[in-house]
Amino acid sequence: MILVNGVETNHIPVNDRGFQYGDGLFETIEVVDGQPVFLEQHLVRLGSGCLRLNIPRPNIQQITDEIYYVCKNSKQAVLKIIITRGAGGRGYRQPETVHPTRVISLHPFPEYPNAHSEQGIVAHICNARLGLNPALAGIKHLNRLEQILARAEWDDPTVQEGIMLDINDHVIEGTMTNLFYVKDDIIYTASLQSTGVAGVMRGIIAKLLPEHGCKLIEHEYGKEDLLSADEVFVCNSIIGIWPVKQIEGVSFSVGKLSNQLQGWLAQLKEKAHSYAL
Amino acid sequence: MILVNGVETNHIPVNDRGFQYGDGLFETIEVVDGQPVFLEQHLVRLGSGCLRLNIPRPNIQQITDEIYYVCKNSKQAVLKIIITRGAGGRGYRQPETVHPTRVISLHPFPEYPNAHSEQGIVAHICNARLGLNPALAGIKHLNRLEQILARAEWDDPTVQEGIMLDINDHVIEGTMTNLFYVKDDIIYTASLQSTGVAGVMRGIIAKLLPEHGCKLIEHEYGKEDLLSADEVFVCNSIIGIWPVKQIEGVSFSVGKLSNQLQGWLAQLKEKAHSYAL
Repeated sequence: MILVNGVETNHIPVNDRGFQYGDGLFETIEVVDGQPVFLEQHLVRLGSGCLRLNIPRPNIQQITDEIYYVCKNSKQAVLKIIITRGAGGRGYRQPETVHPTRVISLHPFPEYPNAHSEQGIVAHICNARLGLNPALAGIKHLNRLEQILARAEWDDPTVQEGIMLDINDHVIEGTMTNLFYVKDDIIYTASLQSTGVAGVMRGIIAKLLPEHGCKLIEHEYGKEDLLSADEVFVCNSIIGIWPVKQIEGVSFSVGKLSNQLQGWLAQLKEKAHSYAL
Repeated sequence: MILVNGVETNHIPVNDRGFQYGDGLFETIEVVDGQPVFLEQHLVRLGSGCLRLNIPRPNIQQITDEIYYVCKNSKQAVLKIIITRGAGGRGYRQPETVHPTRVISLHPFPEYPNAHSEQGIVAHICNARLGLNPALAGIKHLNRLEQILARAEWDDPTVQEGIMLDINDHVIEGTMTNLFYVKDDIIYTASLQSTGVAGVMRGIIAKLLPEHGCKLIEHEYGKEDLLSADEVFVCNSIIGIWPVKQIEGVSFSVGKLSNQLQGWLAQLKEKAHSYAL
């Protein structure tokens, strides 16, 4: 089912600025038993993205009602929300009054083997680079050509994710995930000041780690730091946490921290779920 | 009138990758007496953009027929062509078989006063920066949030264009134009190796200048070079050439080269037009 501004349809107007310029934002949310998981965190990020792009924020009651309407009866699915600056004339200048477009759609949950979260995945290092622009860094906006170029680099079904560097050779994230590594019991991830997407799951992990006495450092780092790590994992709202067992022939031990984190995350989801029901 | 894959409609499917990710390209073309001006150059650029993004190129006969169908009976208008990677599932990976979406639409020609091309315009220097990514540099793709943020910076109707620097403080282009400056009878413009849009009008000017014995240098340059120029002008396919008379309080003499170029351009358009008729 797809709702566009509250109406069930599969289409949007050609003159929507989302289509004309990628002028908008999106969220991708796991749905379990009709409940969107970590919905509050996703709506907070959506709102802060709207603020940064100066798109009027959606009415929380209205969008929440629509989200629950679309999710109801769904055992497990992926919910996608798109907010754009709405219809506009030709040209970059926004209309005097902006009426944002709100698209809420439900998609099948991808069938990932359990082995991905238990034994870890193989990752490729992409040639496609992330450009640098602090004004857009962190925002989950609709300008995604860099990720598309990166994801087009491999077809090998044994490779589950591509790791992207920025144009200055700093390691940033996966094409669809955020990336963490562990070295001497300290956890590191990219700081995302100049590029990258500040994932909701990344934010949840950044809260979980100190709560469990683990030290997380956000910094700039290179491929050598990553490849000499003790442990590596990727995350997003759909996959949760996947340990990385191999990057370009270099193997990593799987699980000491990743498995702990998966457990903490499962507890958090369980708690949120019982509360929601 | 809007044609989507040859069919008259105002809508596209929500799952079009142009809407989901800005996964596509566009062209903006002047139409005079039913004739799209410099159509061949626009189709060549569109094709080379498709090649770089690995989107199947449109069938030239088909798209040309559609373009002429949409333009017929139009005295003066703006034609916009959008090519996207077509419908796709959720996720950055492209479908196994790509069926591009082709949107051809006609828009009113903007009513710019003659003074813009005769006496010159006032330009603002934008705070919004252009990010750097050689893989996307030059392509007129649908990821245009940077231009949108820049264009939102001013409302003053006496300011006609915003000049954008990249994140390394190099001057690149206008929000909707390419930018040239003249110093000691040599013409300079940004090289667009790492960012920017390689406009069709920029390409035409780059051919016209040496044909008329003028020297053009593409290089990296800063705001100080621009502000100490003898003459400055901006260009695109719709406005042609506008001299810049003032940038942030600094005035420039208008017209020595800009007026010559406008004349050479008019001759070229006249020649192309008589040929087309």
